[in-house]
Amino acid sequence: MRWLAVVSSGKWGRVPGGLKRRGLSSWCQALVYEKHGDPRLSLRLERWKLPDLGNADVHVKMLAAPINPSDLNMIQGTYALLPDLPAVGGNEGVGQVLAVGSHVTGLHPGDWVIPTDSGLGTWRTEMVAGEDLLLRVPKDIPLESAATLSVNPCTAYRMLLDFEKLRPGDSVIQNAANSGVGQAVIQIAAALGIRTINIVRDRPDLQTLVEKLKVMGANHVIPEEQLRKPEMKDLFKSVSRPRLALDCVGGKSTTEMLRHLERGGTMVTYGGMAKQPVTVPVSALIFNDIRLRGFWMTQWKKNHALNKEALNEMIESLCQLIRQGKLTPPAFTTSPLEEYRAALDESMKPFSSSKQILVI
Amino acid sequence: MRWLAVVSSGKWGRVPGGLKRRGLSSWCQALVYEKHGDPRLSLRLERWKLPDLGNADVHVKMLAAPINPSDLNMIQGTYALLPDLPAVGGNEGVGQVLAVGSHVTGLHPGDWVIPTDSGLGTWRTEMVAGEDLLLRVPKDIPLESAATLSVNPCTAYRMLLDFEKLRPGDSVIQNAANSGVGQAVIQIAAALGIRTINIVRDRPDLQTLVEKLKVMGANHVIPEEQLRKPEMKDLFKSVSRPRLALDCVGGKSTTEMLRHLERGGTMVTYGGMAKQPVTVPVSALIFNDIRLRGFWMTQWKKNHALNKEALNEMIESLCQLIRQGKLTPPAFTTSPLEEYRAALDESMKPFSSSKQILVI
Repeated sequence: MRWLAVVSSGKWGRVPGGLKRRGLSSWCQALVYEKHGDPRLSLRLERWKLPDLGNADVHVKMLAAPINPSDLNMIQGTYALLPDLPAVGGNEGVGQVLAVGSHVTGLHPGDWVIPTDSGLGTWRTEMVAGEDLLLRVPKDIPLESAATLSVNPCTAYRMLLDFEKLRPGDSVIQNAANSGVGQAVIQIAAALGIRTINIVRDRPDLQTLVEKLKVMGANHVIPEEQLRKPEMKDLFKSVSRPRLALDCVGGKSTTEMLRHLERGGTMVTYGGMAKQPVTVPVSALIFNDIRLRGFWMTQWKKNHALNKEALNEMIESLCQLIRQGKLTPPAFTTSPLEEYRAALDESMKPFSSSKQILVI
Repeated sequence: MRWLAVVSSGKWGRVPGGLKRRGLSSWCQALVYEKHGDPRLSLRLERWKLPDLGNADVHVKMLAAPINPSDLNMIQGTYALLPDLPAVGGNEGVGQVLAVGSHVTGLHPGDWVIPTDSGLGTWRTEMVAGEDLLLRVPKDIPLESAATLSVNPCTAYRMLLDFEKLRPGDSVIQNAANSGVGQAVIQIAAALGIRTINIVRDRPDLQTLVEKLKVMGANHVIPEEQLRKPEMKDLFKSVSRPRLALDCVGGKSTTEMLRHLERGGTMVTYGGMAKQPVTVPVSALIFNDIRLRGFWMTQWKKNHALNKEALNEMIESLCQLIRQGKLTPPAFTTSPLEEYRAALDESMKPFSSSKQILVI
């Protein structure tokens, strides 16, 4: 895997002692883990050696980086991609270019950049990375939007565009509608004129959540328990049956959601919060021609690594929505890098409603 | 549904009394059921009224018709398509044209024909059906091949061609490899140079079955229990990982089969013998990009009802294989229509290894 090769190249391996180079620091502060386990115990803020700036490299000062569930899974050792250890935590974020190598033509000091791929280790003050691993983003969007752009909004965008040809008036059903991806789906779909049917888990403050998602553009918000009730039929008098279902849960909730798909429709699974497999009645496949797919943003980026046109086009479309106020990040709390422990605690609470962003 | 419309048009409703018309009988003998239930109890051989021959109709003398599991499910009332009752059993078979209506141009007396769709009720001595519901087949293939052509070989053919672009040397994995479709898959794949990995249930005479399927062209025959064993890895030293899996079972067996698919590969479910849903690990969808689809020959035929080119092309390709001796029907036993009770008994045995064909 390309990313593992980069990590294992030792570019940011730790060495004893310190160096100064071209007036730039050759050390940074980074949240490092030496072995897999509970992130709150495994991570330490340490001095971390930066590699020399190669001709094709870019020296970046990190500005902000979120704590995503997949970052935690990577530290826990339960993710599908694991770095060589020790490693720096974090996979998403935004930084500002400090200096570029002599062969770098697409980036300039002062530019804002985000990683094109997982695995760079974004929870740190600075990094040196190949130009091909970074993508310029406009500086006229909020810092928090830039820091959280490359995973959730991109996942939502691709899933809405790549699996079914949806037209204004068509509908999409999704579970985990209050997740980062879920909120991005609601907003991007609303901007495209696509109606959303949003499934959320029942909770004490359900009505508050329903209102929040509706303000965001959700057409229908439905507690999970209602999915199997006969009243669901009434819903489809006012909205067309969805041709696309987006699944981040698995287990029973997903099977119930599947039942409401239009014949020939597609369900895309991108997460498994229930830690249970996806179970499909044979009849849904044979007689209703339901199609099951999976989506992984990391793989999409790998598949498009050599041709950045699609990536640039997606980022530009998303930034346009952000500028128009049509796409905002989920509720977030910022903390300085040094206060990572409290931020990790908060991000690991089961019903955490606020994304933690480390500001560096 | 088109077929239900045809059935409920009353064209072959029973009326009291009898008629003679243009020298042709206006009554036939048919295996009729008045209510859903055990086929052995529900079916009776009765006189059944033939409708008048309309301008676009064809009068057919049935020659042979098999007893398929889906025919039994339809009588039991558990199938996805159910006719108005009373109805004539059977959905597949071959007949010979006796007479044609004045507007019929594509069929002539003496032609062999098979139904283009389910629902005609083939267990009878004669039928009158619209020209569009019948398809001419060549008369230079064995009667039993013609009688069993339109369901199993067509299902196998479409599944091998329509879901993954397979090239000679590629491989396919399938369960229920000894079923009618399974045997057709083995033979058609062998003719196309595609290698097959065939999963069968363990049984006392396993070695006999393995030999039989290998003679037919199977490259690998594997008892279900072996699927989860580490030795499966060795298999993939000599054969490429399959890009296509064909599933007629569901439940655990299917989940185990899925694990061996190539990244990005497709599993097509066309039956649910285990009467259990298909269960997919979330990781197979997200990280291995496994795609799940369903296939139903009846739906394919409905989708292609207005354009018979694809249907004719498929029948011609299959007849070519039959003529070359590369595609033979599964072991079968023939019985006269009157001996349907014994044939039904035999076809409902769980490990029945012989297809029952009613010869009329």
